[in-house]
Amino acid sequence: MPEIPTEQWAQVIEKTGGPVDYKKIPVQKPGPDEVLVNIKFSGVCHTDLHAVNGDWPLATKLPLVGGHEGAGEVVAVGDLVTDVKVGDLAGVKWLNGSCLACEFCQTSDEPLCPKPLLSGYTVDGTFQQYCIAKAAHVARIPKGTDLAAIAPVLCAGITVYKGLKESGVKPGQWVAIVGAGGGLGSLACQYARAMGLRTIAIDSGDEKKKMTTELGAEAFVDFATSKNVVADVQAATPDGLGPHAVILVAVNEKPFQQAAEYVRPRGTVICIGLPAGAYLKAPVFESVIKMIRIQGSYVGNRKDSAEAIEFFTRGLIKAPFKVVGLSELQMVYDKMHKGEIVGRYVLDTSK
Amino acid sequence: MPEIPTEQWAQVIEKTGGPVDYKKIPVQKPGPDEVLVNIKFSGVCHTDLHAVNGDWPLATKLPLVGGHEGAGEVVAVGDLVTDVKVGDLAGVKWLNGSCLACEFCQTSDEPLCPKPLLSGYTVDGTFQQYCIAKAAHVARIPKGTDLAAIAPVLCAGITVYKGLKESGVKPGQWVAIVGAGGGLGSLACQYARAMGLRTIAIDSGDEKKKMTTELGAEAFVDFATSKNVVADVQAATPDGLGPHAVILVAVNEKPFQQAAEYVRPRGTVICIGLPAGAYLKAPVFESVIKMIRIQGSYVGNRKDSAEAIEFFTRGLIKAPFKVVGLSELQMVYDKMHKGEIVGRYVLDTSK
Amino acid sequence: MPEIPTEQWAQVIEKTGGPVDYKKIPVQKPGPDEVLVNIKFSGVCHTDLHAVNGDWPLATKLPLVGGHEGAGEVVAVGDLVTDVKVGDLAGVKWLNGSCLACEFCQTSDEPLCPKPLLSGYTVDGTFQQYCIAKAAHVARIPKGTDLAAIAPVLCAGITVYKGLKESGVKPGQWVAIVGAGGGLGSLACQYARAMGLRTIAIDSGDEKKKMTTELGAEAFVDFATSKNVVADVQAATPDGLGPHAVILVAVNEKPFQQAAEYVRPRGTVICIGLPAGAYLKAPVFESVIKMIRIQGSYVGNRKDSAEAIEFFTRGLIKAPFKVVGLSELQMVYDKMHKGEIVGRYVLDTSK
Amino acid sequence: MPEIPTEQWAQVIEKTGGPVDYKKIPVQKPGPDEVLVNIKFSGVCHTDLHAVNGDWPLATKLPLVGGHEGAGEVVAVGDLVTDVKVGDLAGVKWLNGSCLACEFCQTSDEPLCPKPLLSGYTVDGTFQQYCIAKAAHVARIPKGTDLAAIAPVLCAGITVYKGLKESGVKPGQWVAIVGAGGGLGSLACQYARAMGLRTIAIDSGDEKKKMTTELGAEAFVDFATSKNVVADVQAATPDGLGPHAVILVAVNEKPFQQAAEYVRPRGTVICIGLPAGAYLKAPVFESVIKMIRIQGSYVGNRKDSAEAIEFFTRGLIKAPFKVVGLSELQMVYDKMHKGEIVGRYVLDTSK
Repeated sequence: MPEIPTEQWAQVIEKTGGPVDYKKIPVQKPGPDEVLVNIKFSGVCHTDLHAVNGDWPLATKLPLVGGHEGAGEVVAVGDLVTDVKVGDLAGVKWLNGSCLACEFCQTSDEPLCPKPLLSGYTVDGTFQQYCIAKAAHVARIPKGTDLAAIAPVLCAGITVYKGLKESGVKPGQWVAIVGAGGGLGSLACQYARAMGLRTIAIDSGDEKKKMTTELGAEAFVDFATSKNVVADVQAATPDGLGPHAVILVAVNEKPFQQAAEYVRPRGTVICIGLPAGAYLKAPVFESVIKMIRIQGSYVGNRKDSAEAIEFFTRGLIKAPFKVVGLSELQMVYDKMHKGEIVGRYVLDTSK
Repeated sequence: MPEIPTEQWAQVIEKTGGPVDYKKIPVQKPGPDEVLVNIKFSGVCHTDLHAVNGDWPLATKLPLVGGHEGAGEVVAVGDLVTDVKVGDLAGVKWLNGSCLACEFCQTSDEPLCPKPLLSGYTVDGTFQQYCIAKAAHVARIPKGTDLAAIAPVLCAGITVYKGLKESGVKPGQWVAIVGAGGGLGSLACQYARAMGLRTIAIDSGDEKKKMTTELGAEAFVDFATSKNVVADVQAATPDGLGPHAVILVAVNEKPFQQAAEYVRPRGTVICIGLPAGAYLKAPVFESVIKMIRIQGSYVGNRKDSAEAIEFFTRGLIKAPFKVVGLSELQMVYDKMHKGEIVGRYVLDTSK
Repeated sequence: MPEIPTEQWAQVIEKTGGPVDYKKIPVQKPGPDEVLVNIKFSGVCHTDLHAVNGDWPLATKLPLVGGHEGAGEVVAVGDLVTDVKVGDLAGVKWLNGSCLACEFCQTSDEPLCPKPLLSGYTVDGTFQQYCIAKAAHVARIPKGTDLAAIAPVLCAGITVYKGLKESGVKPGQWVAIVGAGGGLGSLACQYARAMGLRTIAIDSGDEKKKMTTELGAEAFVDFATSKNVVADVQAATPDGLGPHAVILVAVNEKPFQQAAEYVRPRGTVICIGLPAGAYLKAPVFESVIKMIRIQGSYVGNRKDSAEAIEFFTRGLIKAPFKVVGLSELQMVYDKMHKGEIVGRYVLDTSK
Repeated sequence: MPEIPTEQWAQVIEKTGGPVDYKKIPVQKPGPDEVLVNIKFSGVCHTDLHAVNGDWPLATKLPLVGGHEGAGEVVAVGDLVTDVKVGDLAGVKWLNGSCLACEFCQTSDEPLCPKPLLSGYTVDGTFQQYCIAKAAHVARIPKGTDLAAIAPVLCAGITVYKGLKESGVKPGQWVAIVGAGGGLGSLACQYARAMGLRTIAIDSGDEKKKMTTELGAEAFVDFATSKNVVADVQAATPDGLGPHAVILVAVNEKPFQQAAEYVRPRGTVICIGLPAGAYLKAPVFESVIKMIRIQGSYVGNRKDSAEAIEFFTRGLIKAPFKVVGLSELQMVYDKMHKGEIVGRYVLDTSK
């Protein structure tokens, strides 16, 4: 039985705009349907910066412990909890909890629950050593898993996997990934390969071409040098009709309109990511005549999460990451703010 | 065995811009996979006016006989035709023929065939007494059907039924129909009722409220007088979460953006209609967080058509129409041009 | 705030085989995630007789309060319960609770949860005045609902509605209901009508023909007098290809094999009901060549339940029932044992 | 332009029961919607032996040229044919043609067409040098394909691929293949791998264990030595709940009942193969409580066929085969009759 301290190190946002304050705070006790997870590693996501900056329409809790990609070990469970045990490995995700009773929770769409608990946003998250989460929502992680390596999968990995599932694309069919060389995009390439899909990577530069090719993409379209992105993407499919689905990892209006043009008739354009104030836009005539579908995809539900993790634990997904101490979070935010980050930063909560 | 004349009356467009010329032209002979239909009645659709005016991106055949909502009797069949017989009733639709071999024809999406034959547009249509159509594509109409009454179903009816099917909405769920009081909209109300759906009619004026209520709509939102269309549409569903699907019969940008706002999370917005130069537009943040789906819907395939006709022949669908002679087509176009048409005009080819 | 007594009337099974003992027992207190429902009315189902007799492979709790079709008013809620309030009307169903965390609970298949709580079987049920149930699982019932009338819907109604949904049959398509004139069957006829389906009722006798016709069936095949059930069922569909789905309310081997023969190619045969020791059986050659699907359907999930109740509260479903006092349960079992029951018995817990 | 002879070598069945007669017969001319294919190689399937023996309920044409796995070059096309050209490579499959107009052809289920033309059964097949087929139905084969190697894919490959698609199993999920070490089974293992599925091979003997492991199966259950097949198959999945789907390549009653026991709740059992007089059989209680689905799967449609071929041409599918001359067909039948065949025999029509 692990001993649980009464105090712990955490990174706390006292007021919107930051900075984060690295200090000792009390360890909470789990409620009847909750668990307490000793977070070992936590990834840092752009959403965490939004939480600091308070630039999304939804207000955060204050003071706030951020973070929603935490992997660790369960050290305490509430009285009602029977399926998670002390000693189990577990992940704390963006969706910390949901009501489990509304129409959306009833239909496996708990990310759409109107009363969600959001880790590191409306409840304290994973930038602390001991984090509370609803037992029904923590991700189950098999013994022996590399907890630093899995951290980025718990948000970024699940999200792109969900997007690929929502697209409805089937083994042997083609998917175009816009932004394939980035953090989300490189995970999407790997999930696509593991799912038997054929990938057209869209990004720019020889380095990204090399990387996406190694991750299984069969074609690369460089949007910066291509004279006609629409024609080049369609030409990458053997029959010239274009990919069955498009995954827009970083949405802005131009790639979106192009996607509606090069996607195959009856195809799907999936939009992931939440740029403030942006609009989906597509020509009505093309969209109707080709019967294309445009859909937003948010985070995965619990089943999606378990599946995305299973692909990772089978060794099919690798995300590049760099480990630094929890105490160094402000430095990570500074780099993120300046756009200097390549790959994912993962925090070691023991440092 | 009916006697087939060598000459017949037809309305012919000699050059783009019109006018139509009512005159005698030769009767064609069907090819091996075609049938010759003695058209008795033909509806007049806005698309026919586009064909005259040549204001769509796709060029028409010239000279051209327009029309694509024709109902009549088969009077001759080609050598390869076994499933349609002389004496059968049949309908000639917008999709006169398709290759039956491409990826789309193989997967029941023949309206997406890249080599379609379009009645009254790329091949001669139903504004003549004897019309050619591919046997595999003519609509089967049961003996005893009122051919004038079914004519508008062959395009308008099938199209809205297809849109309702594509929306994925299920019996007991709610659908909002934008433009419910118009020609397409009033058919959509009736198909929705026959399919066990619950309807929110969106349109303006007491007359349209009365009519849509009689056609089964359980709620009416007057977009002209409502202070908050989004709130009113959502309030019309018992749980206030909004309709599961929205059918946009006449698309313009404002209703489209509203639809994305009031549709239920996980809901679908179906876009029917082809206004030139219009764009679909929806906020990314809402669309992603609510995981909504936006989709274009074109005309129905052969199976959709058969189903839509079956609902009609069961007596569940009634479209108001007015019969005039084929010779009076120019008058109908003139009224259409001035926006003076209420309900559908149907041409009697014998006059 | 209602006053909750410490003792109440209940029907208790002390040992397998019965009889039931009408006596006073203590009222329980709800746990943190539970509610206490003051049951007003409870239907009596054949499953309750199985619980008394102990003739199913699964053992019951002992002593046991049976019953799983209870409708009443919430009088107390646990600390974690936020979405159900004291004073709400609620239904207690066969699935009293489930883990909400396993693969099946995660994917809206909570009836398949390996750790279910079953009302009147593994936990005390609705043949008492105050019954405990998991808050996430009680059925929400709108104010003003006739609680005696809705009781049978909470098991029988939901189950047949689920079977119709599982069949995949769509508005305008045909469904054959085998045993259409019985308790489950007559509910199935009404749900089919409300869902826009076309029904072939299969049962025997003029009385059942009359009743099923009034409930919307378009055809009736009398299995007792028909010389060729397979041919007659197929002939009832306009194209002679047979119904798109078959709902087998009371399964035994003969109707099952017939269903596989008369169902339309690509059709589905849904099997509801749990006769001990019975086998599904179908010819391989027919099944493969016609690509038919045979599937078992168990009870509905929470969403199915809410939908089935909504059809009832809209006035589209009526189940004949007879009210007697809770004290008279043994008499109901005796009649049931002798096969003397027509329609459903509903117990008034105040008598 | 290839020169087409007037006479050719063929293997002809003059009367039911055989033998086959190797002789010269006239070359046919294609009708308006047909093509003439110069068959280079043709696989020999057990169905061909059924055609000789006449032991299926459906009568063959007589005299008959058998064969339905033929690959060759198009040498002539009918007047209506536009999408297949002389010089194209093409495959002739079991479904030589269908009406393209019935309900099933309209919905991509042309194998269920009530008026099918069956190669080597109701029309002359591929055991000749020049074979007629409907243009809309011939399989498109890319230039440069090894025509001997692809021949067995045209029936066996497509059929198992179709079964895997029908099962609904998704990337990352588990499928059990019963008879995994046989001809169909070893193709199924390879398609499953290409589709991102995880396979449990069920068969007997170390040789088959080795082979199926090389083809990607992650587990092997030896039905001959296992003390408890049901328990062993379930134990092969990480959570012990069993595979999501089962593909029964060679159906007999025992494996079928076992499959219903070890398949995961909500899982699917797909039945391929047509043993005369066999019955599907499954316990009602298990089937209902677990909501399992049992379905027959016949041959693929045109789209399935194109997809199965594409997996082959990508190099992901290899079927062991042995080439002999067309003149040696009787020897192949003799071996087949004695059960001496390992892998597939492919006939070279030039010898």
